[in-house]
Amino acid sequence: MENGAERWNFLGDGKLKATSGTTTVHGVLLNIRRNVDKDDPRPTVPLGHGDPSLFPCFRTTTIAEDAIVDAVRSAEFNYYSPKPGLLPTRRAIADYLSRDLPYTLSPDDVFLTVGCIQAIEVTLMVLACPGANILLPRPCFPSYDAHASSNNLEVRYFDLIPEKGWEVDIEGVEALADENTVAMVVINPGNPCGSVYTHQHLKKIAETARKLGILVVADEVYHHLSFGTNPFVPMGVFGSIVPVITLGSISKRWLVPGWRLGWLVTSDPNGILQKSKIVECIMGRLNLTSGPPTFIQGAVPQILEKTGEDFFSKVIVILREAAHICYDRIMEIPCITCPNKPEGSMFVMVKLNPSLLEDIIDDMDFCLKLAKEDSVIVLPGVALGMKNWLRITFAVEPSTLEDGLRRIKAFCQRHAKKQ
Amino acid sequence: MENGAERWNFLGDGKLKATSGTTTVHGVLLNIRRNVDKDDPRPTVPLGHGDPSLFPCFRTTTIAEDAIVDAVRSAEFNYYSPKPGLLPTRRAIADYLSRDLPYTLSPDDVFLTVGCIQAIEVTLMVLACPGANILLPRPCFPSYDAHASSNNLEVRYFDLIPEKGWEVDIEGVEALADENTVAMVVINPGNPCGSVYTHQHLKKIAETARKLGILVVADEVYHHLSFGTNPFVPMGVFGSIVPVITLGSISKRWLVPGWRLGWLVTSDPNGILQKSKIVECIMGRLNLTSGPPTFIQGAVPQILEKTGEDFFSKVIVILREAAHICYDRIMEIPCITCPNKPEGSMFVMVKLNPSLLEDIIDDMDFCLKLAKEDSVIVLPGVALGMKNWLRITFAVEPSTLEDGLRRIKAFCQRHAKKQ
Repeated sequence: MENGAERWNFLGDGKLKATSGTTTVHGVLLNIRRNVDKDDPRPTVPLGHGDPSLFPCFRTTTIAEDAIVDAVRSAEFNYYSPKPGLLPTRRAIADYLSRDLPYTLSPDDVFLTVGCIQAIEVTLMVLACPGANILLPRPCFPSYDAHASSNNLEVRYFDLIPEKGWEVDIEGVEALADENTVAMVVINPGNPCGSVYTHQHLKKIAETARKLGILVVADEVYHHLSFGTNPFVPMGVFGSIVPVITLGSISKRWLVPGWRLGWLVTSDPNGILQKSKIVECIMGRLNLTSGPPTFIQGAVPQILEKTGEDFFSKVIVILREAAHICYDRIMEIPCITCPNKPEGSMFVMVKLNPSLLEDIIDDMDFCLKLAKEDSVIVLPGVALGMKNWLRITFAVEPSTLEDGLRRIKAFCQRHAKKQ
Repeated sequence: MENGAERWNFLGDGKLKATSGTTTVHGVLLNIRRNVDKDDPRPTVPLGHGDPSLFPCFRTTTIAEDAIVDAVRSAEFNYYSPKPGLLPTRRAIADYLSRDLPYTLSPDDVFLTVGCIQAIEVTLMVLACPGANILLPRPCFPSYDAHASSNNLEVRYFDLIPEKGWEVDIEGVEALADENTVAMVVINPGNPCGSVYTHQHLKKIAETARKLGILVVADEVYHHLSFGTNPFVPMGVFGSIVPVITLGSISKRWLVPGWRLGWLVTSDPNGILQKSKIVECIMGRLNLTSGPPTFIQGAVPQILEKTGEDFFSKVIVILREAAHICYDRIMEIPCITCPNKPEGSMFVMVKLNPSLLEDIIDDMDFCLKLAKEDSVIVLPGVALGMKNWLRITFAVEPSTLEDGLRRIKAFCQRHAKKQ
């Protein structure tokens, strides 16, 4: 053929399929949002997301904005950041997290990441090795499954028990683990469950993990977003019982998920993760990839030091009130039950009973029709491994939340089976 | 044992080795820098890096800083960015790159990444499939090799020819490729070579790739940093001959590598990458991971539109003069030869002749001793696949460059073999 053949080595025979579209919350929500009727004059009510930052009542503090502006204007942070991040930033995060621990973290325990997602990515990549498996909660934030799969790390699910405040089914964990189990994941405060675990339950998890010889990956991206009876206790408190890899970020507490500043922290006063070369693997992996922008790192010490309790407690008051509204309104809907009033994070998991509805097959069908008929977006539980459950976000402007819940109630009434 | 056994499943038998310390420029330079004598009263001269942003003469434009400040202050970009990036940002980059192309890129051709590194990472991950191989230039920026290895993508090296302006050895490429070759990488302007390819040579590369049925990965992170006789021509100009994946960022042209705003662009007017599902794989991969912070994305349209030619030409004038000084001074050193005066990027590759030196074994030895005795940091060619070559950065403050080159000359004189 002229100019060479129209034959491309990378075409055909499916050779190049690589990592394509695994399910993500983002992808599922996008799909549901496409169902919204463009002719509905009412605004769409987004109760599916984990990102309230566009609502005026959830605007971040100007202290955080000032810190970024100062860092950019200084022109001192335009250079490539050293791996695993700027030392003063790692020190500030170590100090910040140590306030809640019985020991002191060192800056060397802290690795900066591009949001908590990169912390998840690096952790699962490091834990993946031939034959290994990891224990994940059901329901679970789906990024864990996606990254485990893409690294050929086998996944086994233990249950969270709705009737017991979504606590970990400890016996289930023990039954699942074997000598190839390397870790279990604990998300606290809970996404999607809105749960906040007690000191006692976390200690029990730590002891179980120790007995099984596995480490705990503690996803604490919603750290300190607790507004019920249980205060937030970091898993790292039990770091002398079991080595803990703590994942976190400023995304949720400061309401800036788009700033993409996360961390991976080894909460391990006995240095077991060092000895097992896991720390070396984490560094090896971070050396190959890109960390968060230097000037955002440069702003972090100022953000952590200067943000006052007034900002945090304002957010907690709003979330507590929103959780309250959400729980009360849901109680009025017969086909939806809520086993636990949410006490943390930004979500509640509720159970859908499709048998009470005329023409709704399951949670996905519910969410697609709700979007189409009432322009309300809710995440189907199937995206989190729990068919016929729904995850509802209450971290929206209060009036929007009321509006959304009213529409859900009307939708359910319209579709209710005639007695 | 009390409290469970001190037996950790993730310990021992090297099960958990995963991705550890592959060679990176950063790692090699760190090692060399450790050799600097702390008692040397002279400042260390860093001629090993690719990041001049801390030197006053290479400060970015206030237009770029203003754009970031505006985006942060607006509080409109605190939310999670959609994948693969904000539409106005992708549109702005498409328009910006289209200025140099015979066709118009669409926003859908543009994928935002955390610096050019993530663009490399995603590209190699997508191209990796069982049995596939990729052709890399020698010398080469080592991230390509590292990411290929970590994805089990076989690497084959073709030569760049120093005597021909570091042009690609086309015959070598043809000899290396087989039916499992999926792509070749072209870095232009050249890192580490300081070369800028002619229109004619790039066309020849495109035709060769087409003949071989492989795509071209065009690393243009140093785009428009050309100051010799050849103007910068993007590989995408030949996108109708061969599908091109263009990698770039604002890091070098705007002197803000720490801002971590890069892109992966399909320069492929015939839609072959769409048809071959490569675009789908890129999206699948980006869906799993984190993109650049939203407010930095939000600043990009303003940065691209408002930065004036005066800023760019000021930088070019400084680089041209620096390259000139660098070339002239190196000519005065007998054990170092420079086959090509650099015409682009921020580097020159020079050949070391250790046989003219008393007690220097090779390039690494040269760099370690130079750091120890004269506090000058230079990158050994071995880190780029070229033993007994050196990569010298001239993108430093002019007085610092003169100082560093003087010290290198004195070092070589001191170590010269007595005749």
